[in-house]
Amino acid sequence: MEQTYDDLIAFHGHSCPGLAMGYRMARAGLDFLSGTRAADEELVAIVENNACGVDALQCITGCTFGKGNLIFKDYGKHVYTLYHRKTGRGVRAVLHHGNIPDEIRNGRARFINWLLTVPEEQLVSLQEVVIEEPETARIMKSVECSFCGEGVMETRVREINGRVACIPCWEKRSDGWAES
Amino acid sequence: MEQTYDDLIAFHGHSCPGLAMGYRMARAGLDFLSGTRAADEELVAIVENNACGVDALQCITGCTFGKGNLIFKDYGKHVYTLYHRKTGRGVRAVLHHGNIPDEIRNGRARFINWLLTVPEEQLVSLQEVVIEEPETARIMKSVECSFCGEGVMETRVREINGRVACIPCWEKRSDGWAES
Repeated sequence: MEQTYDDLIAFHGHSCPGLAMGYRMARAGLDFLSGTRAADEELVAIVENNACGVDALQCITGCTFGKGNLIFKDYGKHVYTLYHRKTGRGVRAVLHHGNIPDEIRNGRARFINWLLTVPEEQLVSLQEVVIEEPETARIMKSVECSFCGEGVMETRVREINGRVACIPCWEKRSDGWAES
Repeated sequence: MEQTYDDLIAFHGHSCPGLAMGYRMARAGLDFLSGTRAADEELVAIVENNACGVDALQCITGCTFGKGNLIFKDYGKHVYTLYHRKTGRGVRAVLHHGNIPDEIRNGRARFINWLLTVPEEQLVSLQEVVIEEPETARIMKSVECSFCGEGVMETRVREINGRVACIPCWEKRSDGWAES
């Protein structure tokens, strides 16, 4: 189940410095927790950006957008927090931007290679953290929108004159009154 | 670069009906546009839920959370819209929940097999749509938070008494006045 950097390239579509950074951060965090890739929701990741590196994190940790164990906080920070449900342990991985030599950034291939091979402690700091256990994902029932006839999760339903509406149909009729 | 259903299982961590549904929807949408998996941002996906199937879509289309070409609208609907930047064409793929026989849902393996093999038109409807081209992702400069010293994207910066703060540091000092 482990994924290599080549698997990450296949998923992301290309190699880039951001992917390499995310790879090192995710790998470091997972190793700190003595964890293995999540087949289901054993791990949860809280990511503080939505840049390339998060694709590496999805591949390495198995915390994926579609599984509900990837929580996005739009802080614009190179920080990933990993939580292991079984052990209750958490770790916060922070990228050391300041330790990246300016001259290495000039050549893309050289920069990626440097990121993939530099000793971990020079690139990533790890700190054990205590966090509240995030909720697990739930499967919801679908109901039918009275206006477009398409299915909609029962927790995302709006109402127009007592009739079930999906959000796009509700927004089209934003005065709250049905046309028909 | 094409991914098989086995590649999807490796990424998602397990096979499930949601993954199989997403696979058929993403495959149908991509084929409709005569598209190939996006190495970069050639394709954009707008997904109206964040359930298992979106992991299939990430793998099949290359529209991934970390690449900025996966747009999430929290409508709770089994709808994916794909847009091809080169051709300007868009397609809306909707899952036909109503065409899934109730009895098939009882056995998980049988249900997955049914989803993977049923003729496409029975499971997914496709409609060509005109949408405004979504913006491409941009790489932002990072600056240092004056409080925690960590890097933060310049577009996510707050200010406390003229000093740069990241959102978590700013939130801790929510009266807007620095402690130090």
